Amino acid sequence: MGKKIKLGILGGGGDSLIGVLHRVASSMFDKFEVAGGVFNTDINESLKFAEELGIGTDRIYANLDEFIEQENKLPEEDRIQVVSVLTPNFLHFPMAKQLVEGGFHVICEKPMTTTLEEAKILKEASDKAGKVFAVTYTYTGYPMVRQMREMITSGKLGKIQKIDVQYYQGWINPIIHDKEQRNTIWRLDPEKSGISCCIGDIGTHAYDMIEYVTGMEVKKILADLNYLYDDNQMDIDGTVLLRFEDKVKGVLRASQIATGEENNFTVKVYGDKAGIKWEQENPNYLYLLEENKPLQVLKPGHAYNSDFSLSGTKLPPGHPEGIFDSMGNIYHGVAKAILGVDAFDGEYPTITDGLRGMNFIEKAVESHKNGNVWTSIDE
Amino acid sequence: MGKKIKLGILGGGGDSLIGVLHRVASSMFDKFEVAGGVFNTDINESLKFAEELGIGTDRIYANLDEFIEQENKLPEEDRIQVVSVLTPNFLHFPMAKQLVEGGFHVICEKPMTTTLEEAKILKEASDKAGKVFAVTYTYTGYPMVRQMREMITSGKLGKIQKIDVQYYQGWINPIIHDKEQRNTIWRLDPEKSGISCCIGDIGTHAYDMIEYVTGMEVKKILADLNYLYDDNQMDIDGTVLLRFEDKVKGVLRASQIATGEENNFTVKVYGDKAGIKWEQENPNYLYLLEENKPLQVLKPGHAYNSDFSLSGTKLPPGHPEGIFDSMGNIYHGVAKAILGVDAFDGEYPTITDGLRGMNFIEKAVESHKNGNVWTSIDE
Amino acid sequence: MGKKIKLGILGGGGDSLIGVLHRVASSMFDKFEVAGGVFNTDINESLKFAEELGIGTDRIYANLDEFIEQENKLPEEDRIQVVSVLTPNFLHFPMAKQLVEGGFHVICEKPMTTTLEEAKILKEASDKAGKVFAVTYTYTGYPMVRQMREMITSGKLGKIQKIDVQYYQGWINPIIHDKEQRNTIWRLDPEKSGISCCIGDIGTHAYDMIEYVTGMEVKKILADLNYLYDDNQMDIDGTVLLRFEDKVKGVLRASQIATGEENNFTVKVYGDKAGIKWEQENPNYLYLLEENKPLQVLKPGHAYNSDFSLSGTKLPPGHPEGIFDSMGNIYHGVAKAILGVDAFDGEYPTITDGLRGMNFIEKAVESHKNGNVWTSIDE
Amino acid sequence: MGKKIKLGILGGGGDSLIGVLHRVASSMFDKFEVAGGVFNTDINESLKFAEELGIGTDRIYANLDEFIEQENKLPEEDRIQVVSVLTPNFLHFPMAKQLVEGGFHVICEKPMTTTLEEAKILKEASDKAGKVFAVTYTYTGYPMVRQMREMITSGKLGKIQKIDVQYYQGWINPIIHDKEQRNTIWRLDPEKSGISCCIGDIGTHAYDMIEYVTGMEVKKILADLNYLYDDNQMDIDGTVLLRFEDKVKGVLRASQIATGEENNFTVKVYGDKAGIKWEQENPNYLYLLEENKPLQVLKPGHAYNSDFSLSGTKLPPGHPEGIFDSMGNIYHGVAKAILGVDAFDGEYPTITDGLRGMNFIEKAVESHKNGNVWTSIDE
Repeated sequence: MGKKIKLGILGGGGDSLIGVLHRVASSMFDKFEVAGGVFNTDINESLKFAEELGIGTDRIYANLDEFIEQENKLPEEDRIQVVSVLTPNFLHFPMAKQLVEGGFHVICEKPMTTTLEEAKILKEASDKAGKVFAVTYTYTGYPMVRQMREMITSGKLGKIQKIDVQYYQGWINPIIHDKEQRNTIWRLDPEKSGISCCIGDIGTHAYDMIEYVTGMEVKKILADLNYLYDDNQMDIDGTVLLRFEDKVKGVLRASQIATGEENNFTVKVYGDKAGIKWEQENPNYLYLLEENKPLQVLKPGHAYNSDFSLSGTKLPPGHPEGIFDSMGNIYHGVAKAILGVDAFDGEYPTITDGLRGMNFIEKAVESHKNGNVWTSIDE
Repeated sequence: MGKKIKLGILGGGGDSLIGVLHRVASSMFDKFEVAGGVFNTDINESLKFAEELGIGTDRIYANLDEFIEQENKLPEEDRIQVVSVLTPNFLHFPMAKQLVEGGFHVICEKPMTTTLEEAKILKEASDKAGKVFAVTYTYTGYPMVRQMREMITSGKLGKIQKIDVQYYQGWINPIIHDKEQRNTIWRLDPEKSGISCCIGDIGTHAYDMIEYVTGMEVKKILADLNYLYDDNQMDIDGTVLLRFEDKVKGVLRASQIATGEENNFTVKVYGDKAGIKWEQENPNYLYLLEENKPLQVLKPGHAYNSDFSLSGTKLPPGHPEGIFDSMGNIYHGVAKAILGVDAFDGEYPTITDGLRGMNFIEKAVESHKNGNVWTSIDE
Repeated sequence: MGKKIKLGILGGGGDSLIGVLHRVASSMFDKFEVAGGVFNTDINESLKFAEELGIGTDRIYANLDEFIEQENKLPEEDRIQVVSVLTPNFLHFPMAKQLVEGGFHVICEKPMTTTLEEAKILKEASDKAGKVFAVTYTYTGYPMVRQMREMITSGKLGKIQKIDVQYYQGWINPIIHDKEQRNTIWRLDPEKSGISCCIGDIGTHAYDMIEYVTGMEVKKILADLNYLYDDNQMDIDGTVLLRFEDKVKGVLRASQIATGEENNFTVKVYGDKAGIKWEQENPNYLYLLEENKPLQVLKPGHAYNSDFSLSGTKLPPGHPEGIFDSMGNIYHGVAKAILGVDAFDGEYPTITDGLRGMNFIEKAVESHKNGNVWTSIDE
Repeated sequence: MGKKIKLGILGGGGDSLIGVLHRVASSMFDKFEVAGGVFNTDINESLKFAEELGIGTDRIYANLDEFIEQENKLPEEDRIQVVSVLTPNFLHFPMAKQLVEGGFHVICEKPMTTTLEEAKILKEASDKAGKVFAVTYTYTGYPMVRQMREMITSGKLGKIQKIDVQYYQGWINPIIHDKEQRNTIWRLDPEKSGISCCIGDIGTHAYDMIEYVTGMEVKKILADLNYLYDDNQMDIDGTVLLRFEDKVKGVLRASQIATGEENNFTVKVYGDKAGIKWEQENPNYLYLLEENKPLQVLKPGHAYNSDFSLSGTKLPPGHPEGIFDSMGNIYHGVAKAILGVDAFDGEYPTITDGLRGMNFIEKAVESHKNGNVWTSIDE
């Protein structure tokens, strides 16, 4: 075999959708090969899944302890270098921490941890280890999101004055209205899922996206969450007012009870020179609104895009790429970082993004519980 | 001449856009004829404009006093029956009040008054007079808005749980950043324009639309407005959290600094059975989102629409009608009310809508000034 | 009464949709007043309809002969100056001819006549009379169609190389498959409707639009029509290959059995510098495709549009206007021509457009009947 | 290593876009591993590219002869089983034939050969060999194309009566107008590219798609091609009239001089019950038009889709997949066929599709050269 980066995977076995997403993404730029991991808490299931994947079973381990111990016995050039953590949320923290301390690069699903406290500890450990740590805010890998970031940060919109981000889904609707389901589903169980459902699951994507594309930091927030039923402890909808520096205001809207919505994540940023919009469900269109000019619709692969955007498109214009390709771009960025190759700024979301995401979740719930009051995001 | 309803107009002369809108609207169903009015404070300008319109000059008056006095001398069947008030905002209240008390039906532009107090007084006068009083929230006349109203109020969406309305424009952007302009334009002068710019001008449209299509009342609000510059006394952007009864929440977003936006007014309502969306810039599409079903796009003129919606479409499907037609439907409703013809519920926005709109404006500003706190909308 | 142009109407009574369209259109720029006409072959129906319209009944005539005789007795300044011919197709020719020869300006619905021969005779009569003669190819009045024309003829697209126009409807589908209906409906009866249904009714719109927006003439055509059933004598679908000068080719597609389509009329023109697209069902968007540039979407009312386009928009950007407004622009053009006011080139389709339309219909049927062979359009 | 199907690749080295597409597609369902091949005519380039891909170099061969000889020496379970032919068009035939006769399954890029004669020979060889032979009409792998096929063939549209397919690109525009380029580019050189450029390259996609989604066969065609310049021997634009059985007609439009178009491939099929539309640039939407019903927009991943469509979606609704995923579905189909797993009908385009494609190209050129006359597609 050749010289691909050896990738380990924790979780993602069986019918896991996130497993497919990460495996396909890892293959897109010919940089990684899946070499082993712990797909399942049951080693037999893990082995069976490895056979389904058509990969060797010799590096399928019973648990993370064994994984780390055995891999570290191997010569460095044979070793699994980077591990994708695709386990349930509450396992992200302990596993990622153990991996970081064990000398592995980490690709961690979001939310990175279940509390801000954990996130801080993990960041400290990661900073100490000096390894690559990516948090898969998948949507930041889209070529037109990258283009948006480049256009905003290079001043195309002028001074930003208004930010509006929406993440609407409807999937919890049938669950929340079924008394039995709403009391048994893990997503609505704080013990398993943390303090927030909607804000934690999709609000964070929206939050990260804002900071990613604008390069600006949210300073304080005022959240109004909705729990809809008294016996439901987790928010399933929320609107969050945002304050940035210098009179810049914004609003973040997230819902899982927007009945009939699929994955309607849209971003709008308005500056004093122009506005810009992007919609995840039609990710290959970027709308530029300039005063007294026709609306412009930018698409991937054209030379008018930035090099960073272009690096995330594999085919010529008119050949739509999608979410697998977006995640593939993030994996590509991680590969470059591991290989020490020159990369663009922002090719993968970092542990700082993960930490700020946890910060946002905790402060949003706090703001709401305190009666919808302004609450600062920690520096 | 025949038996059309005689319509008087106050304001709307010269290049007035609102004048064109009302005149064309009045002609759409062959119910009205423009018989006279006061187009301008300068009688000569008024007379000149009457000639441009090709109408007689004998009922062009120097001012409202003369208008009322002279018209009331005419035999009832010759008299102007209804008057459209298209003057600057601060004149709406005194003129409408005088007309109501003078025995005329009134079609009043929004905002109906400049203060809630005025609105209350006007409503009292109108209730006493028992005449038709319409407030031209123009957008409620669109066939697909009417269809949305019928579908929501008849239960197609189930119990409403989430409401999201947006009204984004960008036209103040160049003005607000020009120090001279922002201190001289009447829209930003509280003396002339009232206490609010953005909420008063377009936020009220959004507010009225929500109550119009859902039949529900907003109970309290929390507003975060943006003034952008310290020497600007009027909001030019704002987000308002909404609370209805029974855990129903919503958010209203309005902006005049959403650079590059034209008149992007969109309404989304989600119930426990389905969601629905409408966009003013593409007014002939109504999107119905039902779980596990294809997205449905309803269009005007089809038999699947309600009778009320169908009454607002003049041509078969595929022949787009626009904002003139929407306003025409409102005028049609007013004509029916004047003629005592059976009409649909909701054919024109009433003085109650006008009053609630003023209530909203005052409370939004109050909420913001008090530090973004929950503030009740009066019953 | 003032000085509006007095308009007579032939046909368009009762529930006539075309009647509404023309009446509203005539009112849009305050230039016309409906003064009389022959709405119906039954004078009592005509009188009743006049009352419904709220116009006087003194100039409602029993027939066209009486109309012409009586009007010509009036002093010139009181006389009806222009007459809209909204009767069934086979009456267009005799009525228009009589009006032209009687000294009236004419606004004639399309198809202008039922044969090319009639069209030639009518053109000769009209040329001789020297009056305004408009043929209401309604869609040419849209602001973005006018903008398209201006951009193409001023060279924005470079040299034209490819033209593609589509006009798809589905309304005949249920009729054609119902044996009884297809043998009784007047549209499918050559005696009443002429030699063509689909090409005659909507193909002509498409044909006229091509020549209108490009300023180029079709030289020869090859048509493949579809009759679908042997006992149906009229085409209900057809594709026509087009040849212009200088290796420019095009294709015109029309159908009335495109099931589910409403009024899907789209125009695409490609030059060596850029391409352009417009869709009637979303008439306020004009798409400009330039190589290596973002797609541009032009909208009405912006200063980047030509003066001609801007003259056809009554409100600022973001306030959608529709088909009534498009027809209103054509009426405005006719008014200017009658008044001798400076007008833009192309403000209303002329009798030459009507003649070329008839030419196209006859040659399309001829090409098909001869076995889908190339057939010249007469100069 | 595990038990993936070993895939060989001919061509596709260096910056080849088609190479990326096939490699990523092959990885999507964990069924294939790239084991070797001949990426380049220069063995050193091939070896270098293998290293870039991170695969072993031991099965990189100097040429196809060596590939076949060496692989056939290996034990059957180690052998490369299937080979993707990504070389320039004129090499498809000899290479595919040699592979088929050498005992390999083949995945061949389109056009399958350069002449109909070659295609017939290849089909005979393939039939004899009894191996899997796929032709990568990439677009047939999209979930909504599969859904369209299932809906049409199961009668959802009723009896088909009208078919309209468009494939518009603009990329040849700058080339055709540059005299030097148009005489040197291989695409416009009949020696290298066959007898047709536009019809051969993209017309075939459109042709195959029609037969794929309707299950109907085109019987005869009338083509009007455009060469634009006298010194250009290859069509760069064309419209083709289509006749199916039983009065069903259609039109196929293809262009490479539709300036500014990217890859605008759209399919419309109308039956007597409903119409359906799909657009490649927005591949996750399928439009169903039923009379007197709202337009329905079907999207991937919903349970209302067929099992075949659902098998081609890897994530839940709202997570857009693209062209890589479409090709991945075709590879998945090939894998199932190789593994003898139950598959859906139509999971990959076959050699019969490739043959009919060549038939279409030759007959289209013949029809045009003979003066735009009807020409039969051979059975």
